[in-house]
Formats: sequence, structure tokens, C-alpha cells
Amino acid sequence: MLARTCLALALACALPASAMAADAPAKPHTPTPKELLAKAAPAEWRTPDPQNLVYMDLPQGRVVIELAPDWSPLHAANIRTLIREHYFDGTQVIRVQDNFVTQWGDPDGDDKKKAKSLGTAKETLPPEFTRKGGKPYPFTRLPDGDVYAPEVGFSDGFPVARDKGEAWIAHCYGTVGVARDIGADTGNGSSLYAIIGQAPRNLDRNLAVAGKVIKGMDLLAAYPRGGEPMGFYDKPEQRVTIKQVRLAADVPVAERTSIQVLRTDSTTFAALVEAKRNRKDAFYTRPAGKIDLCNIGVPSRNPSGKP
Amino acid sequence: MLARTCLALALACALPASAMAADAPAKPHTPTPKELLAKAAPAEWRTPDPQNLVYMDLPQGRVVIELAPDWSPLHAANIRTLIREHYFDGTQVIRVQDNFVTQWGDPDGDDKKKAKSLGTAKETLPPEFTRKGGKPYPFTRLPDGDVYAPEVGFSDGFPVARDKGEAWIAHCYGTVGVARDIGADTGNGSSLYAIIGQAPRNLDRNLAVAGKVIKGMDLLAAYPRGGEPMGFYDKPEQRVTIKQVRLAADVPVAERTSIQVLRTDSTTFAALVEAKRNRKDAFYTRPAGKIDLCNIGVPSRNPSGKP
Repeated sequence: MLARTCLALALACALPASAMAADAPAKPHTPTPKELLAKAAPAEWRTPDPQNLVYMDLPQGRVVIELAPDWSPLHAANIRTLIREHYFDGTQVIRVQDNFVTQWGDPDGDDKKKAKSLGTAKETLPPEFTRKGGKPYPFTRLPDGDVYAPEVGFSDGFPVARDKGEAWIAHCYGTVGVARDIGADTGNGSSLYAIIGQAPRNLDRNLAVAGKVIKGMDLLAAYPRGGEPMGFYDKPEQRVTIKQVRLAADVPVAERTSIQVLRTDSTTFAALVEAKRNRKDAFYTRPAGKIDLCNIGVPSRNPSGKP
Repeated sequence: MLARTCLALALACALPASAMAADAPAKPHTPTPKELLAKAAPAEWRTPDPQNLVYMDLPQGRVVIELAPDWSPLHAANIRTLIREHYFDGTQVIRVQDNFVTQWGDPDGDDKKKAKSLGTAKETLPPEFTRKGGKPYPFTRLPDGDVYAPEVGFSDGFPVARDKGEAWIAHCYGTVGVARDIGADTGNGSSLYAIIGQAPRNLDRNLAVAGKVIKGMDLLAAYPRGGEPMGFYDKPEQRVTIKQVRLAADVPVAERTSIQVLRTDSTTFAALVEAKRNRKDAFYTRPAGKIDLCNIGVPSRNPSGKP
């Protein structure tokens, strides 16, 4: 009954990054995401560096991934090499495991005789699972703590956990990680996964994080789950073939996907977090009073006005 | 590269309830879920009461939901009435919002003129958002705390949070909730939602929880996301029509889905939780040392041996 009314309110509460504009106020006491974003200053929106933006074109549409070279520079460089040598074109979504990951790469990657050549990309890389020292990075700390780490927050749009001098991007919904074999140095970026369920935070510090999906999770998370163990597809025809993967920097400006991401060090982002922590309105009569790192979506927008 | 090896290990770490049997050891130091479950005593497996088991038959297969009458008795009773009067047969999946919910019910539920009759079911129910007092209930407390509540654990298979004398089923992946309008008493169970993403714990204590999906999340979570605001489907033909919904108790024993759930007060469940908290093997060199309530899947099995 009256589901839409209910759900409009549920949405206001859910704060999905991808649906900011869809929010219905319904006499809120707490400002809605839509209201807060409408007041955001232009400077609060960040335009990702095209050298860090990956376009993965699937039959169902485009997925946009922002690489995290400040966190895994060697992996970002190797992934750029793989992209520029067209390694990913024609590779496939090979695995979808419910409430865990969607993974893509060369379905024959395990078979050294049949595996696609990595071209000039490196086959192994030093593990970049966490960050110790290095250049300073922005960090907007969240107030409510975390089950897994002493401190969590956001850094340039990425959900970050840290413990003393060590920091890492957390495996939240949409985080893109680097599949590897047993050896810590066996990941190279030729097989990547995106988190499609409850944040499997026990992957943190055991795998390199390449970046984060900023557009297209609605596609990556909706593929049929695979019938084989771990969600691998039973039959080759079930795999989804990737049309092409390109770096935004290599795409003519006029053909690029127009996307901006709200700065996570902005006052509007802080207001969104607080509005979700303590949302109280006609529907939400009991604010949580808390918020978990992976419950916070980072809003994005299309500044072009075009679809 | 070598994705399967990697992912076998990732799976062992991820502990999805639906894939227990799929786990590959690969010289673990920590016992794998498969190893632990193989040693579980028969008495550690619970056979849900058929009065609490809902079969929702979708074109893609069957979803099995266990109702939680100890937590929302009036809602459970109303849902049983709706099922027995065939209310849900022919209703539809009307909304799939990425990283939030899949919702089903009467697409015309908002239109009083067109809405399907609730038959003898009640149109409004007292809110059963939390539980205060009442009969004692089992509670297996988790050791690592929670961002949202002072205490979390499991009770008869349900993920539970509590604060002083008040307790509620948490909105984890697979939790089934009761959609409602603004008024706290406007939910009646005729429109239900399942959580398909990061646990939106800020729904806790604001909505009644009807139960939990114990089979079929792989179907509910994989429907195309809706193009309308909040994930409603743009076009009626996008909606998935529910073939029928029945209570297991009303289905001949021979035709029932054979399913058992691991007892969450069992020593094997405790061992699974500990193995995930501190998993250390050739792949996972840095155990999380912690675990979040909604990261714990409750294993189920088919004791019949038949598919």
C-alpha cells in the first residue's frame, strides 16, 4: 500500500549516490539530499582527472571507474598500460557472486597456454595493499567509529580506513580491487572485481584497491549470479563481453562522459553525512544517530545538462 | 590472472551463506567454512517451522523467506492471511533500487480505486519496529561491537541489535521489511522489500521487519534496476510478475523445499564466525581480527540430497 510515498521517504534516508536528484521531501525536518545538493557551490564539485577515469563499455552501458593512483600508483600505471594496449577489449565478466563481487578479465587467464598476452604491462607488481607515509592526503574523518579500524573517513572521494600510520581504501560497495593469486605480488590489474554487496572489509589490507566505480554500479550489480562455485558462469555464453575499455584522457573531449563528484572535504558533503546520521522527518521518527563508512554514497552529477 | 585460485580463497573469506559447499581450502591455517560445516552435528541444523516459511515463486525460481513472528507477530499473522487468500499471486516486483532494496507488491497499491483488495487481512497494524520485554529469546552476542547499537548478535538465525531493554532485527542483506506510508501503523505486509546492498541500518527501528530471505537472494538481487526515481520500473512490462506465494505449511510435505539453517547458537556457527574474524592462510595474511554483524551469513543446506 502507498509504496511510492513510503519509498520516496525511504530513499531520502538511503542516500544513494546515484539517485540524489530523485528525492522527495515530504515535510522533512532534516534537509533532504536533494535540498542540500541544490545549494552546493560549483567549487564543491570535483572533476576527476581524465588520466584516472576508466570507461568500461558493456553491452548494457558504460561503467566509469576512478583510479586511485595516490593509493596504488603501480597498479594504476599497469592498468593504464593494459587499457592503452586494448587488453580489456573483448575480455569478459566471468564471475558474479551474490553479495560479494562482480569480476571481469580474461576467462582463460588461469591457463598459461591460452591466456591473453599482457603486452608491455607487468605480470607482477609489488603489493600496494596499504599506504604508509608518502605524501600527505586529505582526510575527512567520520564521527562514529568503525568495527574494523580505529579511524575511518573519506579522502578525495574514496572511503578510507586507517590505523596508526597505515591507511587503505576500504572494500565498500563499488570499490574496485585487483584479483591476485596466492602470492602478494601476483596481482597486475588484468583481472578486477567490484564489490556488489555488504562491504567485505576482511579483504582490506589483503588486496590492492585500484579505485572505485563512480557510475554504472546499477549495471555491474545486476548481472545474473553465476551457477558455478564462487559465482563463475557455468557456460561461456553466460559471460558478458566487454566491448571496450578506454581511458577518458584518450577519448576526444566532446565524447567524454560528463561527470563530477561531490568533494568529500566540502561543507555540503559534511551536511549530507550529518543529515543521514540524524535524519528525522515525518517518516523517520528514530534517527540512527550514527553512520557507517560504507553507508555513505558520494554524490555525482552530470554538469553538461545533456543525458 | 589466476582468478579462480584467488577467488576460491576470496570466497573462503567471504563466507556467503549460499556457497558454503563451494569453498577450496588451499592449505589454510584457519579452517574453511566447508571444513567446519562438514563436521557440524545434525542437531546443529535447524528445520524452520513451515508456518513461518514463505515460498515466493518467481519466473526465475523460488525465493524462501523465514518469517519472524517472535519479532513482528501481528505482521506475520497478516502476511499469512494475505498468502492464504492468494493476495500476492500475480502481484509484481515493482522496484529495484541499486544498493538498497528490491520491493514487491501491488503496482496499483497507491491508487485506492485500483488497489487489490486485502481480503480479510488488516489494512493497518500497530508498529512492531522493536521488541521490548516479551518472552525471553536466544541471543548469541558478537564480540566486536557495532557502529549503530551497543550490542549485536544472532537470535534464531536473525541478525539482532539491541540497546538496553530494546531489541530489533537489523536491516542486513536479505532482511525482509514491511513497506509503509508516513504513519507508523500504515504497514500491513502487502508490500515487502528485501535489502540487496550495504545494510541500510538507519532503517532499523523505523520499519517492521517481517523476516529474512534464506534462499533466493541471488534472484532478488539480480533484477535490472528500475529507471524511475527510487528504482521503480519505467514501464509496466519491466515488472516481474510473481507466479504464486504460498506458506510451506500449506504445501504437501513431498513438495516442500528441503532446507535447513545452521543454528546460530551452535558451536559450529561460533567457529565459523571466529574463522572469518581471524582468517589467516596463504592468501589472507592479515586477518581483520573483527567482524561486523551484517558480514556474517547464516549457512543453509538441502538435507534431502535431491537438487
